[in-house]
Amino acid sequence: MSKVSIVMGSDSDLQIMSQAAKTLEEFGVDYEMKIISAHRMPDIFVDYAKTAKDRGVSVIIAGAGGAAHLPGMCAALFPLPVIGVPIHTKSLGGVDSLYSIVQMPSGIPVATVAINGAKNAALLALKMLAITDSGLLEKLNTYSESMKDSVASKCEKLESCGYEKYLSDM
Amino acid sequence: MSKVSIVMGSDSDLQIMSQAAKTLEEFGVDYEMKIISAHRMPDIFVDYAKTAKDRGVSVIIAGAGGAAHLPGMCAALFPLPVIGVPIHTKSLGGVDSLYSIVQMPSGIPVATVAINGAKNAALLALKMLAITDSGLLEKLNTYSESMKDSVASKCEKLESCGYEKYLSDM
Amino acid sequence: MSKVSIVMGSDSDLQIMSQAAKTLEEFGVDYEMKIISAHRMPDIFVDYAKTAKDRGVSVIIAGAGGAAHLPGMCAALFPLPVIGVPIHTKSLGGVDSLYSIVQMPSGIPVATVAINGAKNAALLALKMLAITDSGLLEKLNTYSESMKDSVASKCEKLESCGYEKYLSDM
Amino acid sequence: MSKVSIVMGSDSDLQIMSQAAKTLEEFGVDYEMKIISAHRMPDIFVDYAKTAKDRGVSVIIAGAGGAAHLPGMCAALFPLPVIGVPIHTKSLGGVDSLYSIVQMPSGIPVATVAINGAKNAALLALKMLAITDSGLLEKLNTYSESMKDSVASKCEKLESCGYEKYLSDM
Amino acid sequence: MSKVSIVMGSDSDLQIMSQAAKTLEEFGVDYEMKIISAHRMPDIFVDYAKTAKDRGVSVIIAGAGGAAHLPGMCAALFPLPVIGVPIHTKSLGGVDSLYSIVQMPSGIPVATVAINGAKNAALLALKMLAITDSGLLEKLNTYSESMKDSVASKCEKLESCGYEKYLSDM
Amino acid sequence: MSKVSIVMGSDSDLQIMSQAAKTLEEFGVDYEMKIISAHRMPDIFVDYAKTAKDRGVSVIIAGAGGAAHLPGMCAALFPLPVIGVPIHTKSLGGVDSLYSIVQMPSGIPVATVAINGAKNAALLALKMLAITDSGLLEKLNTYSESMKDSVASKCEKLESCGYEKYLSDM
Amino acid sequence: MSKVSIVMGSDSDLQIMSQAAKTLEEFGVDYEMKIISAHRMPDIFVDYAKTAKDRGVSVIIAGAGGAAHLPGMCAALFPLPVIGVPIHTKSLGGVDSLYSIVQMPSGIPVATVAINGAKNAALLALKMLAITDSGLLEKLNTYSESMKDSVASKCEKLESCGYEKYLSDM
Amino acid sequence: MSKVSIVMGSDSDLQIMSQAAKTLEEFGVDYEMKIISAHRMPDIFVDYAKTAKDRGVSVIIAGAGGAAHLPGMCAALFPLPVIGVPIHTKSLGGVDSLYSIVQMPSGIPVATVAINGAKNAALLALKMLAITDSGLLEKLNTYSESMKDSVASKCEKLESCGYEKYLSDM
Repeated sequence: MSKVSIVMGSDSDLQIMSQAAKTLEEFGVDYEMKIISAHRMPDIFVDYAKTAKDRGVSVIIAGAGGAAHLPGMCAALFPLPVIGVPIHTKSLGGVDSLYSIVQMPSGIPVATVAINGAKNAALLALKMLAITDSGLLEKLNTYSESMKDSVASKCEKLESCGYEKYLSDM
Repeated sequence: MSKVSIVMGSDSDLQIMSQAAKTLEEFGVDYEMKIISAHRMPDIFVDYAKTAKDRGVSVIIAGAGGAAHLPGMCAALFPLPVIGVPIHTKSLGGVDSLYSIVQMPSGIPVATVAINGAKNAALLALKMLAITDSGLLEKLNTYSESMKDSVASKCEKLESCGYEKYLSDM
Repeated sequence: MSKVSIVMGSDSDLQIMSQAAKTLEEFGVDYEMKIISAHRMPDIFVDYAKTAKDRGVSVIIAGAGGAAHLPGMCAALFPLPVIGVPIHTKSLGGVDSLYSIVQMPSGIPVATVAINGAKNAALLALKMLAITDSGLLEKLNTYSESMKDSVASKCEKLESCGYEKYLSDM
Repeated sequence: MSKVSIVMGSDSDLQIMSQAAKTLEEFGVDYEMKIISAHRMPDIFVDYAKTAKDRGVSVIIAGAGGAAHLPGMCAALFPLPVIGVPIHTKSLGGVDSLYSIVQMPSGIPVATVAINGAKNAALLALKMLAITDSGLLEKLNTYSESMKDSVASKCEKLESCGYEKYLSDM
Repeated sequence: MSKVSIVMGSDSDLQIMSQAAKTLEEFGVDYEMKIISAHRMPDIFVDYAKTAKDRGVSVIIAGAGGAAHLPGMCAALFPLPVIGVPIHTKSLGGVDSLYSIVQMPSGIPVATVAINGAKNAALLALKMLAITDSGLLEKLNTYSESMKDSVASKCEKLESCGYEKYLSDM
Repeated sequence: MSKVSIVMGSDSDLQIMSQAAKTLEEFGVDYEMKIISAHRMPDIFVDYAKTAKDRGVSVIIAGAGGAAHLPGMCAALFPLPVIGVPIHTKSLGGVDSLYSIVQMPSGIPVATVAINGAKNAALLALKMLAITDSGLLEKLNTYSESMKDSVASKCEKLESCGYEKYLSDM
Repeated sequence: MSKVSIVMGSDSDLQIMSQAAKTLEEFGVDYEMKIISAHRMPDIFVDYAKTAKDRGVSVIIAGAGGAAHLPGMCAALFPLPVIGVPIHTKSLGGVDSLYSIVQMPSGIPVATVAINGAKNAALLALKMLAITDSGLLEKLNTYSESMKDSVASKCEKLESCGYEKYLSDM
Repeated sequence: MSKVSIVMGSDSDLQIMSQAAKTLEEFGVDYEMKIISAHRMPDIFVDYAKTAKDRGVSVIIAGAGGAAHLPGMCAALFPLPVIGVPIHTKSLGGVDSLYSIVQMPSGIPVATVAINGAKNAALLALKMLAITDSGLLEKLNTYSESMKDSVASKCEKLESCGYEKYLSDM
């Protein structure tokens, strides 16, 4: 039974959104992944969002760029949390996507992450699930530890070898 | 039988959107006016947009602020032109509304007018109808003439009385 | 007899604006396509815009970048709908073009589409013509169906083969 | 036992942040509410964030304006979801708060809502808790129904009395 | 015979633009002042701009807000310098006006001053005329001296009485 | 002998800049305060900046709005640290002041603080002086403690009386 | 004897600023061209700006990027017109340069052109000189004619060969 | 004993931040350089910032991008000056980093330099130290002289060989 649904309106967003899938896999959490456009196939979209809960979906992660309606429309139809990922755009850098996703009206929240922040969207979904899943919380704590260790070892390397050698190794 | 549908997601947009209604009235064009939220009542919204054409609607004028999804979602469901009016917002001045409305993906255009430009939205709808309605086109030409005359008489007044008197009369 | 006029101020906009022409061709709608600058040849421009209706033009699609006056000046002279396409600019990404086109004063609307949205400009023109052209409306509905099918088949592929294979096939 | 922690760095944010408290009260969910500055009292802040989970906190809602570090620093120290509320600022309208909260680095997500969106932050927290709390989910569904009814009755009023009367009644 | 032409598209810009007139008066330079819209009366506008030189106009100062085409269209038709004054706008603060005026294409420059900078527009026009008018240059130098003296006396006051007294006197 | 020089180009900045003076007074650090415009009195300005060190000035705090050149020009002429305070502007909110002050070219740094951040400018100057003044450092630590206590007592009040009472007391 | 002075603060601006020189050469107008930084060599800069008029300079064209003080400081010291060219910047696209140049305080105007608009700066300088130089005005009219002809012949080519051939020839 | 501490949250900032180290080396000022994330290792970070003064650190230079909390959190914990370097970001160009660093609340200043301005951050630190170190001040004056000479010799070359040769030599 899936737990998280990853959805995007176009396969041009797949490169970014696949980072969410990869992260969920690392934590062993089930997910479904779909390309569904709220604009180009509104009926299929409505059906997708309305039935998500019955498919066992607890959190939707929706990525979109430009006039990014997908996350907000998910939030209008799905009763549990929706996480929005604003996708970088060529002309406006993704500030259009960001405003379209984050500035939701009262009553219909979307949990917005950074531009292209699909990995963080997955981690946020995991934190939501970890509220009542202590095993998952443990994994998140381990993950945090490994992030810390990774930065710490970089710091050690920099301090031991100096920035010139460090940069030439990158 | 109505010709233009004016829709907004909240009655906080009514002050601005009523300017579109007033303009349509001046031109004697039928309209319906509704408060329907794509976020708060998605089913009613979908029904509204899908049946609009059968109600005789030729153009939808949709006003929205912030993460303004209403115009774009109308355009996903209604086969004829949708005009979007970005509503001014307190924090971002309406640039959020503008980006959310104008930056639509390929295949689903929204004809966007200026921030708070409800009157221009009505004029744009009238121009669309005037493509095959010469009576309406005539009225639009008369309207243009009267705009011209109004500015011209202001110019005359300024040139005859000077800016100090003109400003003190304003 | 032409139906839509596509105009731009410089041939540097042609790569983008040709997408409008291509779309009109796909729908079998006549068009004329011109490079006319409101700044560099104002007399020729005024003549172009004033005589467009007599040439059978029902809609003008005008593309421009930077201080993009072309669409607004068309709207000042042509009594039927004008669609503006803001062209991407190197320094400001096209936000200059967008503001110059969309923020028109009361009385002179320009139907603005997304930055570089020439294809959507053509679809918007087609929707305007389809108000009283049921054959064209049918074609637009067919087009919508094919968009839907295209996304649906991508979704199916993603669900059957997974994102890694999908991405490596792109 | 508290479930949600509402925190802000200054009492100038209290007017906005109290909307989150009010919403949680309506749903009968326990909360604590604190004024703690990550900048002005970093030790107390670190202690607050580290011990929150042991106090029974499942979600933190953090409001901040300007160089709004509070939500992000909560997310660095608290293992469960953190929701950030960007507060409107006089000079930049809150776009500074928004960027400081939403653009978090990989590994440390903050669920960002709209500028001044404290009520939506509470609803988002409720949706997170509702993942495993069917009673709360029911209440959220009832809430959605009442939002829908409220808009629908406004629409009815507008259609029956017209915009002039509606506006004069506002 | 007039020397400078001050033009604006609407009398809502007159409050600001009158500062240009006042400054020209202080320097004893002739001017004409007109309300002419390039959008609402394009024929009158074209005639105005084309005949300006024959009326003895050496510099045009054009003020406009929003999609501010007036200065750029003057520059397309008038062979001598055009100075553009971007007018403050409610939603975008005048950044729309600024971009529409300053981002002119190659070949058609507009000398742009600050948002609402009508007084500086007049001073800039005076400096242009002073290139070959040594009497005017003298007056400009005297003006600069008086500006300097005015600031210097404010500095003296502040240093002698302190900021508390100075502020309470303002 | 003065230690810090507070300078601004216009007395319209005095309301904000006086907060820097007040803060320096609280810490018992000498200062001079001047209104000197780099634009309107360049010679006096150059003299001011070149002789500042000989007057015993160790840090310059310069406030300016719009095309805010004063801090940068101080930094070009004064060999010790210059702190820039971007002043809020009506049209652009101070983002013009901020960019003009912070985006200095390589070789000529200005230590920029928040828009209208004159108080922080003074604290930053004090921290610079405290590098070699342990008495001043002690005072800064005491100041930090009092900030912490002030927030802590607000937190206590909020927790004891609730947000409704707290807000009604504000 | 030179007539126009072209100045920039760094040779990284030379590629853009050389377009101004090239344009002046085409019109046979004398110019001097210098690299002088107001920040890095303030004394030499002050001397340059103060003595420009005595060297026969009638107009200064100053290009600068980032916290672009050069044009404004020229305007503080040189009594005749100063034209500012905002140079494109990597991070902010030149909007920093634009604001730093255009938002000058009352009394000290800078005639600002588009980002990277060095060619237009030269044309603007020529228009200033043409106020009292009918030979130069004639050349400017000829230049305008040739711009018009160039666009007209592109239009003809596009209409005769179609966009596909036109694009493949580019 | 070190004097300046250079810190960044990720080694992706090292390329830029190493310019600060290089500059300090040129002036013979001791420094330490560390990769420490306030988000990923908050405990280590707090320890780093609290003990910096005891390690002999007089100034911290902190570089960060996006929701750049590192400089502000240093300023919350370290009693002496903190200089913030906003790092360029792909989507928003570094305006997110800039706002997150510069818009600090009252009481906790960060001395902010230009986007990617690590070299200027080092020079600013040196100027702070030079307040009481006349040897360092002398070196800074020499540095200023060499900057001046470098520009002056470029100016000479340009004037002697012309822009075409100059550009072809670059």
